[in-house]
Amino acid sequence: MARIAPLSGFPEWLPADRRVESAVLAHVRHVFELHGFAEIDTRAVEPVERLLSKGETSKEIYLLRRLQEETGGADEGGLGLHFDLTVPFARYVVENAGRLNFPFKRYQIQKVWRGERPQEGRYREFTQADIDVVGAGTLPFHYEVELPLVMAEALTGLQQFGVPPVRVLVNNRKVSQGFYEGLGITDVDAVLRTIDKLDKIGPDRVRQALQQDNGLTADQAQGCLELAGIAGTDITDRVRALGVGSPLLEEGLEELTTLLEAAQHRMPGVVQADLRIARGLDYYTGTVYETLLAGHEDLGSVCSGGRYDSLASDGKNTYPGVGLSIGVTRLLSRVLGKQLAQATRGVPTAVLVAVTDEDHRAGSDDVAQALRARGIPTDVAPTAAKFGKQIRFADRRGIPFVWFVTAEGHEVKDIRSGDQVPADPHTWTPPHEDLWPQVVRPSQ
Amino acid sequence: MARIAPLSGFPEWLPADRRVESAVLAHVRHVFELHGFAEIDTRAVEPVERLLSKGETSKEIYLLRRLQEETGGADEGGLGLHFDLTVPFARYVVENAGRLNFPFKRYQIQKVWRGERPQEGRYREFTQADIDVVGAGTLPFHYEVELPLVMAEALTGLQQFGVPPVRVLVNNRKVSQGFYEGLGITDVDAVLRTIDKLDKIGPDRVRQALQQDNGLTADQAQGCLELAGIAGTDITDRVRALGVGSPLLEEGLEELTTLLEAAQHRMPGVVQADLRIARGLDYYTGTVYETLLAGHEDLGSVCSGGRYDSLASDGKNTYPGVGLSIGVTRLLSRVLGKQLAQATRGVPTAVLVAVTDEDHRAGSDDVAQALRARGIPTDVAPTAAKFGKQIRFADRRGIPFVWFVTAEGHEVKDIRSGDQVPADPHTWTPPHEDLWPQVVRPSQ
Repeated sequence: MARIAPLSGFPEWLPADRRVESAVLAHVRHVFELHGFAEIDTRAVEPVERLLSKGETSKEIYLLRRLQEETGGADEGGLGLHFDLTVPFARYVVENAGRLNFPFKRYQIQKVWRGERPQEGRYREFTQADIDVVGAGTLPFHYEVELPLVMAEALTGLQQFGVPPVRVLVNNRKVSQGFYEGLGITDVDAVLRTIDKLDKIGPDRVRQALQQDNGLTADQAQGCLELAGIAGTDITDRVRALGVGSPLLEEGLEELTTLLEAAQHRMPGVVQADLRIARGLDYYTGTVYETLLAGHEDLGSVCSGGRYDSLASDGKNTYPGVGLSIGVTRLLSRVLGKQLAQATRGVPTAVLVAVTDEDHRAGSDDVAQALRARGIPTDVAPTAAKFGKQIRFADRRGIPFVWFVTAEGHEVKDIRSGDQVPADPHTWTPPHEDLWPQVVRPSQ
Repeated sequence: MARIAPLSGFPEWLPADRRVESAVLAHVRHVFELHGFAEIDTRAVEPVERLLSKGETSKEIYLLRRLQEETGGADEGGLGLHFDLTVPFARYVVENAGRLNFPFKRYQIQKVWRGERPQEGRYREFTQADIDVVGAGTLPFHYEVELPLVMAEALTGLQQFGVPPVRVLVNNRKVSQGFYEGLGITDVDAVLRTIDKLDKIGPDRVRQALQQDNGLTADQAQGCLELAGIAGTDITDRVRALGVGSPLLEEGLEELTTLLEAAQHRMPGVVQADLRIARGLDYYTGTVYETLLAGHEDLGSVCSGGRYDSLASDGKNTYPGVGLSIGVTRLLSRVLGKQLAQATRGVPTAVLVAVTDEDHRAGSDDVAQALRARGIPTDVAPTAAKFGKQIRFADRRGIPFVWFVTAEGHEVKDIRSGDQVPADPHTWTPPHEDLWPQVVRPSQ
């Protein structure tokens, strides 16, 4: 096998960095479960026509073909890799509707694939961690308050690993649509798509596009830009001051205010309104969410989603829902790339049992098994090399303890301090922080 | 969305069954880590030429094509989904050789894809759980003893969930090859491939094939069949009684005996020799392993692997290794299909906090958050329906406790017994077995 280069857009981690990823995933999983979300795991493939029926992302799908497929064979000519976890979830809900209880709260942590041009924060293969709640027919508004707070709790908890604080930005489709309609704008979706370009092309070119491409008057364009400029936790009066009114706008403002107040009560300072968030507003029907990492706003949103009135429908029901998705790989790439977090070691092992000579390997194996039986991750030296070499074996891997089995008895050495003490494999226990690798900020 | 049928060969589980799978994976992961294996996770795709360079399985690969790819675009015309975790691991080792410590012990739990015709125990998408240890240049024999015992420990521990006991069957390439060479057989690989068909076509047709297709004499064919008939824990004398000798055979018998004795010491009765196991003997160079589930031998092996002298090589080193792979989906399909194990509930939730009326939802949310802060998975009722309906909501999901917030104070009801007692969300704790869903045998 010749020298191998990584494949652009398909990131992989060394074992110590995978440890960081696992700790992050275990934490968010725990928070999701504390809130009653049940895990599902869907197949990686969906019929192409289902993938193609949804939005822009579907254009970047990977199609599958069996190497041995007969030309024209129809049995699975139509499969592609999923590009998010929402399309498979929608299909799963309809497929299993009779066997699920609604409202159904699920989480799902899997890889997805998109044939995009790779760049920082954008990958061809990446992991998402999604929560959604869907109802059969109806779904109460309070879930639009609950779900972003679950995500905020999950992401805020990552600060223990060195992940910066997050800010959740919210908008509401009803606010934008109600306001635009109040201004006399008819093609709301087109205007939303133009407003969505604010970050990319700036207000001047957005104003130009609103007038030239979307046919807005100068006043209408000005109103849209003023609305998009409103952000913070107290936005109702500022929106009203723009002098535009409609029942839908009032409904949206009331929902936004309810969300902001509840968020302020549960997690002060984390959630803010930002009325220029337009992403997916042509798909979502209520609240929408984006999440920025403090000091890393250039990375873009690490957790996005919103309320949709029709995730899917079968003959019997439509399924409205609220969902958010953490871009785990985007988040991790920044955290690892900027060395914000690291694992204390790349192996699980807390103790290396030294081998005095190969004839006594079984004795070392017995010690290891006794330690493992008590929940202590333990390895045995690969060869009966000189003890100095065996200690270096442990040192290179970050294994803190080396255990010696000699004719005089058992001793364990903390190779960081050099302290060596007699020990019994049936009672000795390492300090709690040494038992398993920890994920910490490098400054610690 | 019209009615949807499952896709043959791509199994998915309902939430309660996914819980069983997660418990199984968490257990094997824990055992792997107790033994010092570090986790890696590799991308799902490999260059096609790498996939095609390995054995029969490679013929079943899925090729990828981007929907928007220009015809003839070369940038990734050559990607396919991995069909096992060994090919990506080999590539990962060579790609990262300079940043890994050898011997390198890794585990990897991921999905793989094969375009096979689906049938029971064979899927197009399934999960494998692999452990391998690789050395740079050399790898001591004792790992051929250690690794099957790690797997035996991992699989035996699954009995707590209702998974039947396992029997690990071992053979050694050196025994077969040494014996065949002692018989004067030159094309050892061809004979191994024929012997491998014993289970499928029976001894008579194997004998016929050995003579007609492999050109063996009647005596040679008889010798091969007699060797293949030997099984158990004490095989050396029975092999010697066949009257064939060679240095390689002796070396193989010594290795097998060492393994069987060590296994008998650590896990009595689990590991046996079975000299007709030929699988992959043309790839493996030492011990090979298969694992059968007691009472479910028809399922085939649920954990297989072996010793290979050259997993991969770069300019500098070859990388010998020993590895085994659990067929998680095959195992789970049987366990779930035969209802050998089940989760006590399909949601994580231990407590449902009832909502008296929507104006007091915040009070219920506060209770839920207090319980979650103490590690108790808690949900809040979706609507302020009549209490009877809220209790049924919990009952349908298997949530054992419903919490009531009334003007008189807090009370919690065990909806199984009907017992209702006053409770404080800052101190009340459910019984340990109710805190999280358990995976149990249905008879319990």
